[in-house]
Amino acid sequence: MKIENYHKQPLTVIKVGGKIVEEEETLKQLLDDFTAIPGYKVLVHGGGRSATKIAALLGIETKMVNGRRITDADMLKVVTMVYGGLVNKNIVAGLQARGINALGLTGADLNVLLSDKRPVKDVDYGFVGDVRQANVEHVAALIHQGIVPVMAPLTHDGKGHLLNTNADTIASETAKALAQVFEVSLIYCFEKPGVLLDEHDDASVIPCIHPEQFRQLVADGIINSGMIPKLENAFAALDAGVRKVYITSSTAIDGQGGTLIESV
Amino acid sequence: MKIENYHKQPLTVIKVGGKIVEEEETLKQLLDDFTAIPGYKVLVHGGGRSATKIAALLGIETKMVNGRRITDADMLKVVTMVYGGLVNKNIVAGLQARGINALGLTGADLNVLLSDKRPVKDVDYGFVGDVRQANVEHVAALIHQGIVPVMAPLTHDGKGHLLNTNADTIASETAKALAQVFEVSLIYCFEKPGVLLDEHDDASVIPCIHPEQFRQLVADGIINSGMIPKLENAFAALDAGVRKVYITSSTAIDGQGGTLIESV
Repeated sequence: MKIENYHKQPLTVIKVGGKIVEEEETLKQLLDDFTAIPGYKVLVHGGGRSATKIAALLGIETKMVNGRRITDADMLKVVTMVYGGLVNKNIVAGLQARGINALGLTGADLNVLLSDKRPVKDVDYGFVGDVRQANVEHVAALIHQGIVPVMAPLTHDGKGHLLNTNADTIASETAKALAQVFEVSLIYCFEKPGVLLDEHDDASVIPCIHPEQFRQLVADGIINSGMIPKLENAFAALDAGVRKVYITSSTAIDGQGGTLIESV
Repeated sequence: MKIENYHKQPLTVIKVGGKIVEEEETLKQLLDDFTAIPGYKVLVHGGGRSATKIAALLGIETKMVNGRRITDADMLKVVTMVYGGLVNKNIVAGLQARGINALGLTGADLNVLLSDKRPVKDVDYGFVGDVRQANVEHVAALIHQGIVPVMAPLTHDGKGHLLNTNADTIASETAKALAQVFEVSLIYCFEKPGVLLDEHDDASVIPCIHPEQFRQLVADGIINSGMIPKLENAFAALDAGVRKVYITSSTAIDGQGGTLIESV
């Protein structure tokens, strides 16, 4: 059943990664900023730096290929502890203290995100999951009741295994699925204030990118390799019904001042 | 509003502790057994052995007083990782694989269990919480929708702090609160088959204990110091509206063959 847009209420899905969720002071600021976002909302977090740190303390070496973590059995335990436990539950407790009724979730909880273990091609990423299916009925109902989901970058394969999954992907898959029910804005927060015309000049934020501009910016070599998958992801989310996508800084999580990605 | 008993549907709250949830083979058996329990249900788990093990690997010493863990800031991080992450999420994924739509929760999630940091008297237990308030409206609604909550032994103080909380207490406080909505059976599983007449003879299970018998068994020195708080807890749960309490073995989680505690 297709629900027409005019029946949908706005929902903001905010993905924050990196050290902002892992250091006490920046986390406090983030939680204050997130609390100030009006309306229905979802927070998706990373936690890679903490995972690397805890792994090192446990004598487990972190191996990255193409910016992605190789997740063997020991590393899977670490990310399950750090993403699903340490980072997620501290965010949940922090939001509760701010009057937000938060609910921490991995993709296994409520069967929200089912994934397949990534097939081994050039690289064996180990226990890493590519999302196959999102089941957001219960989550959508909880959101309508005022609950704020806080999602850790873990999924499951439906056979009893947790899988490490990129937080950007968690955010886009969740946003796409919730776009069936809500008018979704998806906000990717990262260390830069937006997509930059000049990567060395934080003042050079491109305020708005449409698909045609994107192709031109790539052709002109202005958008570099690291940003291309982020933008492709953003356009895919728009194609799947997400209303707006922003790429912005972790200190401006409402998207203002960042780059707005639009499909039209 | 008091809901009369005849409107209530049965719910089983099962608390499992110890190594059964922490070793792959026994965990599999437990998850199979739990899956076979009919009707609405909640699983409450411990994880102390894993916490001690991970703490040791991280160079953090485990200190116990009166069988309770001293939880300093570092140990709180460990139990948050192990209880809220490693143990909880593996159980959730394992139940999903068995067709159970599980939802992992700490007391911070959905604000289920609010607690106060235990005041320092003879012992400073550190970040340990005594439950002040249970809020189970959302949990009860989810249970009615077929969701199975899986609860980790962590609560929060409403001020942004997680607190380590005894899993028996999590089970009894949750059971008591849910007894407003369901006809609750509370099953405590531990390493013995039940309350024993002779602690060295596993065949000497006392099938049923009423308050008067309890007083007599304590007076006769048959029930020892370790079991007294468990039984007091059980009677308190019955007084608060829980229908039945069982003390049984982790290999007989339906309570059959264990000790039934009754208030009448």
